[in-house]
Amino acid sequence: MNIDGIPTRTLRAHPAQNSIDIIDQTRLPHALHWQRVATLEEAAHAIRAMQVRGAPLIGATAAYGLAIALDFEASDRRLAEAAALLRSTRPTAVNLHWALARMEAVLAPLSPAQRYAAAWAEAAAIADEDVAQNMAIGEHSRALWRDLIVADGRTLNVMTHCNAGWLATVDRGTALSPVYAAHDAGVPVHVWVSETRPRNQGLLTAWELEQHGVPHTLIADNAAGLLMRNGKVDAVIVGADRIAANGDVANKVGTYLKALAAADNGIPFYVAAPRSTIDFACAEGAEIPIEERDGDELRRVHGLDARGIPSALHQLPAGEDVANPAFDVTPGWMVKAIVTERGACAASRKGLLSLYPEEANA
Amino acid sequence: MNIDGIPTRTLRAHPAQNSIDIIDQTRLPHALHWQRVATLEEAAHAIRAMQVRGAPLIGATAAYGLAIALDFEASDRRLAEAAALLRSTRPTAVNLHWALARMEAVLAPLSPAQRYAAAWAEAAAIADEDVAQNMAIGEHSRALWRDLIVADGRTLNVMTHCNAGWLATVDRGTALSPVYAAHDAGVPVHVWVSETRPRNQGLLTAWELEQHGVPHTLIADNAAGLLMRNGKVDAVIVGADRIAANGDVANKVGTYLKALAAADNGIPFYVAAPRSTIDFACAEGAEIPIEERDGDELRRVHGLDARGIPSALHQLPAGEDVANPAFDVTPGWMVKAIVTERGACAASRKGLLSLYPEEANA
Repeated sequence: MNIDGIPTRTLRAHPAQNSIDIIDQTRLPHALHWQRVATLEEAAHAIRAMQVRGAPLIGATAAYGLAIALDFEASDRRLAEAAALLRSTRPTAVNLHWALARMEAVLAPLSPAQRYAAAWAEAAAIADEDVAQNMAIGEHSRALWRDLIVADGRTLNVMTHCNAGWLATVDRGTALSPVYAAHDAGVPVHVWVSETRPRNQGLLTAWELEQHGVPHTLIADNAAGLLMRNGKVDAVIVGADRIAANGDVANKVGTYLKALAAADNGIPFYVAAPRSTIDFACAEGAEIPIEERDGDELRRVHGLDARGIPSALHQLPAGEDVANPAFDVTPGWMVKAIVTERGACAASRKGLLSLYPEEANA
Repeated sequence: MNIDGIPTRTLRAHPAQNSIDIIDQTRLPHALHWQRVATLEEAAHAIRAMQVRGAPLIGATAAYGLAIALDFEASDRRLAEAAALLRSTRPTAVNLHWALARMEAVLAPLSPAQRYAAAWAEAAAIADEDVAQNMAIGEHSRALWRDLIVADGRTLNVMTHCNAGWLATVDRGTALSPVYAAHDAGVPVHVWVSETRPRNQGLLTAWELEQHGVPHTLIADNAAGLLMRNGKVDAVIVGADRIAANGDVANKVGTYLKALAAADNGIPFYVAAPRSTIDFACAEGAEIPIEERDGDELRRVHGLDARGIPSALHQLPAGEDVANPAFDVTPGWMVKAIVTERGACAASRKGLLSLYPEEANA
C-alpha cells in the first residue's frame, strides 16, 4: 500500500536492531507517526493500547514481539513467559493465539542458540503470508462482486464497519482487499464508512481509502440501517476477529446490527478473513470471549483543537457508569459468504470444511 | 421534574415579558443554562440549532414562538409568515406542524387585537396538555411492564435510544415516563442509555436519569445488539418524531437497528408518544421526510477540556465527505405496542384507530 504515494507495509522489521517500527494508529488520522518497538513490554503495550489493532496485524506484531523478547535470553522459560504476556494482551482476536502457537511450535524444538534467528524468520513468514493471503482474498472477491456489478457502470456501493483495511493487516487488508481489487480493476466503487464508536476506527478506514483514491462517505454507526432501507447499499463487507467452527463471526461491536439490517433488506453480508482467524476449536460464537474495554473510551473524545494540536475532551465525568464491550457475534446464517485466501464458502461448519478439509478430523 | 431537587419544567413562559426561558440543551450535560427567547427568530434558531429538541418540546416551543411573534403585529400576514418560518426549522417531527396548525386554527378566526392573548393561552394549553399526556403514558405503562416484572424483585432492564425524557417534552417525557412511573412505584429499574451519535443525546438521558436517581449505564450505540443477545435487556422503549397511519415509526437515527435486534432476540420494543406525534395524513413510513443535518455534527466532537471549559475538537477535516441523516423509520411490525395518552395499541392502522376512532373518516 502507499502512504502519500510511497509504498509501505504497516510493520517494518529491523532484525539487526532487534526492533520493529509500527504506525501508532492511536494518532491517525491526524498524524502519521512511526513508533519504534524494541522490547517485549513495548510490543505488549502496542497491542493492548491499540497502537496496532486489527486481528491479522495483532498476530504479526505478537510474532515479532516474541522474536524481540528472545534477544538476550532464549530459554524455555523466557519463551513461555514472553508468549504468555503477549497472549494476555487481548482476548478476542484469535490470530494472536494462532501466531504465538505457531511461533512456539517452531521454536520449542530448537536449542536456545538457534531460536533467535528462527523467530525473526518465522515472524517474517507470518507477515509475508498475511500479505499474500490478503491479495488472494481480493482475487476471490471477483465472485462476490460479479452479481452486483451492473453492466452500465453504475457505482458499486459497499458498506464496511471498523477498519479491516491495510492498517488492520500487514498490507492490503481483509474486508477492503476486495474493494481495492475492484477499484484497481476500474470498477466504480464507493464505500460507506461507519464511524465505529467508541474508538472511531472508521476514521482510519476513511484515511486509508483516501490514500488509495477510493470514494467514500463517513456516517454515524446509527445511519447504517436507514441507508440500507433506502437502497443505498449493494453489499456489506467486514473483517473478523474470530470465526467459530460453525460460521458464527466475532467482529467489532456493531457488526451484528449491520448484519441484521442487511438481512432485513436482502443485502449480501460478507466476511473476509484469512485462515488464521478461523478457530476450529471453538464450536460456536457463544464460546468466544468478548473483551470489555476501559469506559474512558466512551467518557473521553479525541481530536485536534483549533491550533491543530491533538487533544482529548471529557464528554462524561469519571464516575459515570459505562459498559464498553469491544466485539459482538454475528450468527453464521446472516453471513452470505466467508471469503478466505482459499475462496468463498458458506458461513457454516460444512462451508468452512469445504475450504479446509484437513480440519475435518481436528 | 426536579433539577438539583428543585421542581421545574423545561420551558418557562413569561407572557408579560413576551418571552420564554428554555434550557439550552446544547450545553448539557456540562452546564445548565437557561436561555431567554424573546423574538420569533430566536425561537426558530432554538429549534433549528437544537437548543430545544424532542418532538413534543419542539411543538410547544413553536407554539410559544408564534405567540412571541404576534407582539407588535398580529395581522393575517404576520401570523402566516411567522408560522411558515417556524414550520421550516425542522422537517421530520410532526408535532411542530401539529402545534402550529392548532395555533393557526384558533387564531385565524380572531381579530388581530384578540390574537396576542389567545396565542399565549393556546400555547400554555399545548404545554399543559403535553405534561398531562406524558403522565398518562406513564400510567398506561403498567400494562407494558406487568409481564416483565418478576415476582422476586429482579431489576427490570430497559434500553432506550436518544432522549425521550422530560428534556424532550415540557415535563415527564414520553419513553422515560414509564421508566419514572416504575421507579416511583418502587420497581427496581435500570436503563441502558445509548450514546446516540452524532449529537450524543444519550448524555442528556444519563443526566436526567441521574437527577431522578434512576440507575443507568451508558453504552456505545454499537453495543446494543450484543447486550440484547446476551439477555441483558428486558424491553426497549423509545419516543417518536412521527408515527404514520400504518404504525411505521420515524425516530432518531439508529432506532431501526435497535428494533431489528429486539425482534431477533424476542425482546418487546415499545414506542411511547402522544396523539400529536401521530400523522394520520401520512399513509406509511416511506412518506416521512428525513432531515439531513450538517456534516460538522460528525466532523466535530464536543466536551470539556482539562480546565473544565466547553470545547470542540475536529475529528475530521472540513473536506471529508459525510452523510448525516437524523432519523430512520422502523416498520410497525417490529413494534410490540405504541403507548399514547389513551393507552397501548398495536402499531398498525387498526391499532391506532382503536385508540382514535374519530380519525377513521379523516
